[in-house]
Amino acid sequence: MKLLRVGPAGAERPALLDQDGTLRDLSALVDDIDGRLLSDGSALERIRAALGAGVLPALDPAGLRTGPPVGRIGKVVCVGLNYHAHAAETGAASPAEPVLFLKAADTVVGPEDTVLVPRGAEKTDWEVELAVVIGRTARYLETDEEARAHIAGYTIAHDVSERAFQIEHGGTWDKGKNCETFNPLGPWLVTADEVPDPQDLSLRLWVNGELRQDGHTADQIFPVAQVIRYVSHFMTLHPGDIVNTGTPAGVALGQPEPKPYLRPGDVVELEIEGLGRQRQELKSA
Amino acid sequence: MKLLRVGPAGAERPALLDQDGTLRDLSALVDDIDGRLLSDGSALERIRAALGAGVLPALDPAGLRTGPPVGRIGKVVCVGLNYHAHAAETGAASPAEPVLFLKAADTVVGPEDTVLVPRGAEKTDWEVELAVVIGRTARYLETDEEARAHIAGYTIAHDVSERAFQIEHGGTWDKGKNCETFNPLGPWLVTADEVPDPQDLSLRLWVNGELRQDGHTADQIFPVAQVIRYVSHFMTLHPGDIVNTGTPAGVALGQPEPKPYLRPGDVVELEIEGLGRQRQELKSA
Repeated sequence: MKLLRVGPAGAERPALLDQDGTLRDLSALVDDIDGRLLSDGSALERIRAALGAGVLPALDPAGLRTGPPVGRIGKVVCVGLNYHAHAAETGAASPAEPVLFLKAADTVVGPEDTVLVPRGAEKTDWEVELAVVIGRTARYLETDEEARAHIAGYTIAHDVSERAFQIEHGGTWDKGKNCETFNPLGPWLVTADEVPDPQDLSLRLWVNGELRQDGHTADQIFPVAQVIRYVSHFMTLHPGDIVNTGTPAGVALGQPEPKPYLRPGDVVELEIEGLGRQRQELKSA
Repeated sequence: MKLLRVGPAGAERPALLDQDGTLRDLSALVDDIDGRLLSDGSALERIRAALGAGVLPALDPAGLRTGPPVGRIGKVVCVGLNYHAHAAETGAASPAEPVLFLKAADTVVGPEDTVLVPRGAEKTDWEVELAVVIGRTARYLETDEEARAHIAGYTIAHDVSERAFQIEHGGTWDKGKNCETFNPLGPWLVTADEVPDPQDLSLRLWVNGELRQDGHTADQIFPVAQVIRYVSHFMTLHPGDIVNTGTPAGVALGQPEPKPYLRPGDVVELEIEGLGRQRQELKSA
């Protein structure tokens, strides 16, 4: 299923995109698409049954904003340098184990929402990423199979990054990863049963219509299941948490000088096979 | 005022400790001690008026757990290496600007809750810290005075850290800072009006009764107001967010070999002048 949340920021209603591309209202059935729903197998079955029975009311998508596909997100765990060619373009060696950092949940916005270039920023960069949505509490997972059983589904994350804040101001990367609006998410949470192989997805990102990233999850150094298993040994993953699994090559940081960092007015579009498309316009904070 | 939350984890009720040390129930007056309350001046005034009028019912503290003093925390922003002697003991230079990293809100537990030593951990360390509770949305603050106006109050944070996870597994510090139960918080949110000078507080931490940290916030490299102002240029602080302002010298990492890292069965006690006391027993995860 393709689950999503539509409506004004902070007041989104749960919805579903059916196989014909019709938007269906879920608000009579469930409160929200969030960790509680995702960890409740019977609620998901109720949605599936109502969809099958053809009783979900259609919603007119005209003028309706799409929010992030998960509400009440606890945390966003990110994997850095998870594609060899991207590690190389940043001048880093391919890591021996997953590099992790955090984005606060308050950085998450909808897939078409405005992205703000922070004040004082000169190196705002793009990163298309396959995002995992956690469906069950994950602690100390032992096998990849166990890890897969804790995944509710997948979506697209734009891991916007300010490289000067990230690298040139001391300390950890978090400073350049947590500016407001820096994690557009969506449009849909595609449930795991509809993504037979998360290592067989193409990812693309365009800036002002120019293709900048053209990657494939087969090139991930640490595949999705291994990442989830690994993370669960350092932190507990809760239903509704998000794991951004890293970006392929092609970011601005990896380009020759003058590097084409993002500026107000730029438009970024992102696409992952089967997971839909995002489009953001950049403005000044 | 000393605001707190008492009761079972996840079902705490709002309370207040009055000047006589009597615990008072606030649940008839407010839903919770959280960002919404802290950003609502009239709600805080209602509490103050009810306290003055002597109409708040007493609560029997016997057998009552103390939870973290703030509910629905969005994020915990941490400052690293913010005391010269601590930076020196870790082998780091004193930073030129604040070092920031994040703890997820799900690491926060009550001040007397069990702290879990992660599986595979061998270098679990203690850190007593003055924590700031944010009261108003803070973006791009220009002055220290403005920063102070965004502080709801103060409490104690135990920034538990696993040094091997933090330093020896690649990537950022977040890996060693986000294990479950790694941020005991409380006991009280002491409102800012009752902390005339946050740079004049002594901090102490004992392990199994032995004094290990004995610091003073006067020794902070970046004082509280400057930290809040600085953070607000990299990320938006929301009401109910927590900022851990760094730890003084005396952590296990800074001791001669064999370093006395924490083990299951150890008891850690923490105290900050005027902000109360924490006590945690360590167990295996």
